[in-house]
Amino acid sequence: MSLIPATPEEIERLDYSAALDALREVFGNRLQTGRSAREQAGKDESFHPSLPPHGVIKVKNAEEVREIVAICARTRTPIVPHGAGTSLEGSVGAVRGGISIDFSEMNRILAVNAADFDVVVEPGVTRRQLNEHLKDQGLFFPIDPGANATIGGMTATRASGTNAVRYGTMRDNVINIEAVMADGRLIRTGKRARKSAAGYDLTRLLVGSEGTLGVFTAITLRVYPIPEAMSAAVCTFESLEGAVDSVIGIIQYGIPVARVELLDALTMKSINMYSGADFAETPTLFLEFHGSEASAREQAELAQEITAENGGGGFQWTINTEERNRLWRARHDVAWAGKLLHPKGQIWSTDVCVPISRLADCINQTRADIEESGLLAPIVGHVGDGNFHLLLLVDHDDPQEVERAQALHHRMVLRALEMDGTCTGEHGIGYGKIEFLEIEHGDAVEPMRMIKRTLDPDNILNPGKVLRGL
Amino acid sequence: MSLIPATPEEIERLDYSAALDALREVFGNRLQTGRSAREQAGKDESFHPSLPPHGVIKVKNAEEVREIVAICARTRTPIVPHGAGTSLEGSVGAVRGGISIDFSEMNRILAVNAADFDVVVEPGVTRRQLNEHLKDQGLFFPIDPGANATIGGMTATRASGTNAVRYGTMRDNVINIEAVMADGRLIRTGKRARKSAAGYDLTRLLVGSEGTLGVFTAITLRVYPIPEAMSAAVCTFESLEGAVDSVIGIIQYGIPVARVELLDALTMKSINMYSGADFAETPTLFLEFHGSEASAREQAELAQEITAENGGGGFQWTINTEERNRLWRARHDVAWAGKLLHPKGQIWSTDVCVPISRLADCINQTRADIEESGLLAPIVGHVGDGNFHLLLLVDHDDPQEVERAQALHHRMVLRALEMDGTCTGEHGIGYGKIEFLEIEHGDAVEPMRMIKRTLDPDNILNPGKVLRGL
Repeated sequence: MSLIPATPEEIERLDYSAALDALREVFGNRLQTGRSAREQAGKDESFHPSLPPHGVIKVKNAEEVREIVAICARTRTPIVPHGAGTSLEGSVGAVRGGISIDFSEMNRILAVNAADFDVVVEPGVTRRQLNEHLKDQGLFFPIDPGANATIGGMTATRASGTNAVRYGTMRDNVINIEAVMADGRLIRTGKRARKSAAGYDLTRLLVGSEGTLGVFTAITLRVYPIPEAMSAAVCTFESLEGAVDSVIGIIQYGIPVARVELLDALTMKSINMYSGADFAETPTLFLEFHGSEASAREQAELAQEITAENGGGGFQWTINTEERNRLWRARHDVAWAGKLLHPKGQIWSTDVCVPISRLADCINQTRADIEESGLLAPIVGHVGDGNFHLLLLVDHDDPQEVERAQALHHRMVLRALEMDGTCTGEHGIGYGKIEFLEIEHGDAVEPMRMIKRTLDPDNILNPGKVLRGL
Repeated sequence: MSLIPATPEEIERLDYSAALDALREVFGNRLQTGRSAREQAGKDESFHPSLPPHGVIKVKNAEEVREIVAICARTRTPIVPHGAGTSLEGSVGAVRGGISIDFSEMNRILAVNAADFDVVVEPGVTRRQLNEHLKDQGLFFPIDPGANATIGGMTATRASGTNAVRYGTMRDNVINIEAVMADGRLIRTGKRARKSAAGYDLTRLLVGSEGTLGVFTAITLRVYPIPEAMSAAVCTFESLEGAVDSVIGIIQYGIPVARVELLDALTMKSINMYSGADFAETPTLFLEFHGSEASAREQAELAQEITAENGGGGFQWTINTEERNRLWRARHDVAWAGKLLHPKGQIWSTDVCVPISRLADCINQTRADIEESGLLAPIVGHVGDGNFHLLLLVDHDDPQEVERAQALHHRMVLRALEMDGTCTGEHGIGYGKIEFLEIEHGDAVEPMRMIKRTLDPDNILNPGKVLRGL
């Protein structure tokens, strides 16, 4: 099983000179064709190798995007949109070559409508840039996938992260999208109204489409008031079941928990190694609560009672900002910390999502499988959503280890699907998970293909991603 | 401008005898072709006249739905799904005749997954039936459009209602859909995982598609724990602006208000007439807060401070269930109360939704327009969403009054669109608002048409709804 659909050499041989010539006429030397720019454009943050496009253009506005799409449509040249390159499933790789549209300089914040709790941004705005811009107005954008991704990329991937249990995912927080379609049409998928029952939900169709149905030129997002107070808590458990049952109890009690992260024993060990902390090396929950000061305190206290009923110990909570930040820094350092466990290992980060009632079982079976496979892989999860990540540490110079990791990964995804879960909660399909998408959706894959074919009949928009063989 | 696309006589003349013969062979006398059954099937709760189908079948399971779709596909016969018939834009009218699939007896609750906070239901389950079933388990389904609609109909219409400000709309609360597509394929749009980044969001594409893309056979919904406590409040204002600014302040403060309804002076007058209450006849907010008892109290108290800063008066709040129910009964009686203002008038209920910053302006301009038009129309709004309803009271035997009402309606919708709002926040398009959908979406209409054409090339699924002239 090769995860790579083509080699860079095979891609290089494809002839898009007509497109390159036409683009050079319009963009001059802003069309970058040097090796380094192309290699960077084709590489994401994952272990997937770079699959360089034939050319890269840093766009500045929607009109330029339209010009590129028009030329690529005329010459049947693939287009690969590129945000910050933080994807994990090869989404920016030019699996059939073509032109990478780099949005990193198309990053203006076009409007902040504070009273409406929405903002309009260009796709290249990063989430940190947006939050920096918003904070003086007492607003924030909650979706936090960890990396400092662009809003365009997060929209394309239907990203989420630690806050999704309270604030939802990109699905819930994109109000409308302006996009150039394959036929050159510039559409806006909706108005700024908070809700609408007017026609097909093209917004949600584009969210998660990974650049295969349209190229985004502006995105309207929902934002939220910065909570008056936040409290954070940490709690350890002897078993995963206790941790998961605590979270079910917390939700059942109606506590609007803002973040609830599960870190397994191996993850806690790696954090201790990395930061010199002395966390107990057992399954652990990190929690955060947002509200008025009274409410943030009450929520933490109620959560303490519920965790205690489920075998939780060492519950500590704080409303102090510094202590809270220290906790979440530990959570964010998990990827770096993991590397200490296996210095030659590269991180292969993959995620699945199951109904929460199946989560402990799914993680336990996966943990047993990891150990039988002789691999190292910390597990962290957005447990409120039933979503967890395996940080597989794999020495890519060791073909047998790679093979064992691929087999383990395959079993993990099938296990999640059997439990009525999904092959990816938030990383997307890219080209890395196409086979699993097909298993997951079965007869529903064909309607997806029909939609792709009708909206992009020549398959110029990020071909080879999400769906295969079009 | 006629709102009716065809007369019952024109529809009756269409020949679907091949379909009727084939269906009779399978369903025997369960295929109803009598006048009364057909007229009832073609009529919703609105002023739209009945547009009867040629036959009606009360289905019992997905297999029967598949058989009907197969026969109708083969004979190119329109299919109109029918839930409780509570739609307001003619959604159940058979504008091109054909077969009405009546889901009222396909109403089993297939699974309650309490730990996962989801349920699986057949489309004919009504929201009250569902909540009755759930309450012993401490769960509830929050979407409340007023009418006792079916889950299938609410999903098809992307319904919402008074709780949407806190719990979202059907868009946010449908986890997956099982549906028969026009080509006979039975698909399930997703797993039970709470979130997924796997492929195109067919769930959201079907939510709000009004029966035009697929016929639902099962729906998985998100449900919520019944809050420990609920408080309710009422507050009056001299001006609409004060009421709307209060709501913006409440959201800005991060108070997770569960319901916040705006009733204008005329609505309050009608409620007093109907129930003998003595509410002040000025713009009024009804509010509800969910949480722990401490939190439900704190939220009401904070809201009181914020409304006072915005000129609110007479703030009264309660945590007592009976008093709370009395308040919401008054809100729910608005439709009946309105009729007292104009005994010969029939209610024409229509809705638009705008960014909340434009809401007071939009309502004030609409109110002035109503008065200049010499019409009577109470206004109520789900103000947290920027969504409001006009309850136009129109004597349909007075052609001039009907004409004035249509012109007023037209201006109101265009006004909302100019304010970056939508032509319907929650009622849907049906055949009543197709022209406005076209104005609202502009170049985005064609992608909708492309999707419809590819998924239903013979246009058998609820033709004449949402999109015209296919």
